[in-house]
Amino acid sequence: MNDESIRAIVEEISAQFGPPKILNIDPNWRMMEDARLVLQAKMDKPHCLAPLIDHTALGPAITREDIILLCAEAEKHRFASVCVNPCRVSLAVEELESATPMVCTVIGFPLGANTTGIKAAECMRAVEDGAEELDMVANIGLIKEGIWAAVFADIVGVVERAGPVPVKVILETCLLTGEEIVRACAVSACAGAAYVKTSTGFSSSGATVGAISLMSRVVGGALGVKASGGIGDFETAIAMIKAGATRIGASKSKKIIGA
Amino acid sequence: MNDESIRAIVEEISAQFGPPKILNIDPNWRMMEDARLVLQAKMDKPHCLAPLIDHTALGPAITREDIILLCAEAEKHRFASVCVNPCRVSLAVEELESATPMVCTVIGFPLGANTTGIKAAECMRAVEDGAEELDMVANIGLIKEGIWAAVFADIVGVVERAGPVPVKVILETCLLTGEEIVRACAVSACAGAAYVKTSTGFSSSGATVGAISLMSRVVGGALGVKASGGIGDFETAIAMIKAGATRIGASKSKKIIGA
Repeated sequence: MNDESIRAIVEEISAQFGPPKILNIDPNWRMMEDARLVLQAKMDKPHCLAPLIDHTALGPAITREDIILLCAEAEKHRFASVCVNPCRVSLAVEELESATPMVCTVIGFPLGANTTGIKAAECMRAVEDGAEELDMVANIGLIKEGIWAAVFADIVGVVERAGPVPVKVILETCLLTGEEIVRACAVSACAGAAYVKTSTGFSSSGATVGAISLMSRVVGGALGVKASGGIGDFETAIAMIKAGATRIGASKSKKIIGA
Repeated sequence: MNDESIRAIVEEISAQFGPPKILNIDPNWRMMEDARLVLQAKMDKPHCLAPLIDHTALGPAITREDIILLCAEAEKHRFASVCVNPCRVSLAVEELESATPMVCTVIGFPLGANTTGIKAAECMRAVEDGAEELDMVANIGLIKEGIWAAVFADIVGVVERAGPVPVKVILETCLLTGEEIVRACAVSACAGAAYVKTSTGFSSSGATVGAISLMSRVVGGALGVKASGGIGDFETAIAMIKAGATRIGASKSKKIIGA
């Protein structure tokens, strides 16, 4: 898509839902920190990417022991966060009490097909348990139907309950057209998201340079852009960052940083 | 596993959590109807299987139009139910108002890794919206850790809120050992589940004859057994029923019944 088409869509969405809530973006938000880190990262040194990576373990069979190891690795390598399922947030918060990495969890994951009320309840519970970042899945069915007011309301329902906790909106880009990605990014920005994120890692494919580049052209500079799903080595992570990603979600984080 | 080992496990679990709640099983529950239908089904006539099949559409990108079609197909072919995501329950209830098929939805789906409180909230919302059957995912991580009291409490948390609405407990059998399957079936029975179910359809594989046969040996006759995940034709469905399945979950339901 050319810049003019993107600008037209962003203006149309902003006219409907109000301007992107960039005023809400506290300078302490990780997104700004991410951007600084991206600029500073010595791209030839894999371990410099660690502060940009959400060290992730979201499989259904993850155990307590796995989470304890994940947290220890995150602390050792100084990853940005651990990203864990909701039932593991309390444990991760306990494990990382005095450590740098944040605890991130997921909302409406991975199908995004719960009611907004339940997503909001999940959000409140996660924040209560100590989650410091929330990766919510947008309602993909509503995006496919083009019911943007409902997509907006679904995201707002979570963002409002999250308070100061940044919300990343997962779009599952492999299921969307270019235009749907642009519209969903613009809607996410208007709804107060801190980031847009490509993928759950549970769909037909993950992040692509094309999707990241497009998302970055819509919201880059105002929102963070997280690349996730299938990122398994340093070269792929670098390609995503060069395309505009300010955060990487990965379970193969240690491989990416060469640890 | 031999019968003696299975019996020993069931007795151990019953000693810990009380006897299987078979007294709770209302004769109107679909599980009894399933068993009758299995006995009556003319196994050479594919369309006779329709009342045993949950006609399923749980993908993230399912639209309103897809659900309307799903419901029309369920009504036409007299499938047992439509199985839809929580955000589509109200629509399906509306579409099937005066029709035979029930509306089934999913809880903690597909990872089972939400907190019990959120699973309970999902359950209450689904029942409020008119869901007549609930397929919940057990906490697989807790099963792998062998913390059976927590697995039990997680299921009870949903069953108690479901009231008279039958709960099927999804075990994601492809991730479990034989012994874990036996224990999880026994715990589900003690916790008041109406069915045990093999798979979400979102993991590494789906129902197998081996898993269904094992589950049926633990709970068959007392609870229903639902085979799901990857069942794409009549022969596979029949193999599952012969192994002990009383319900089939499938998106390729029309192909199974030769419609």
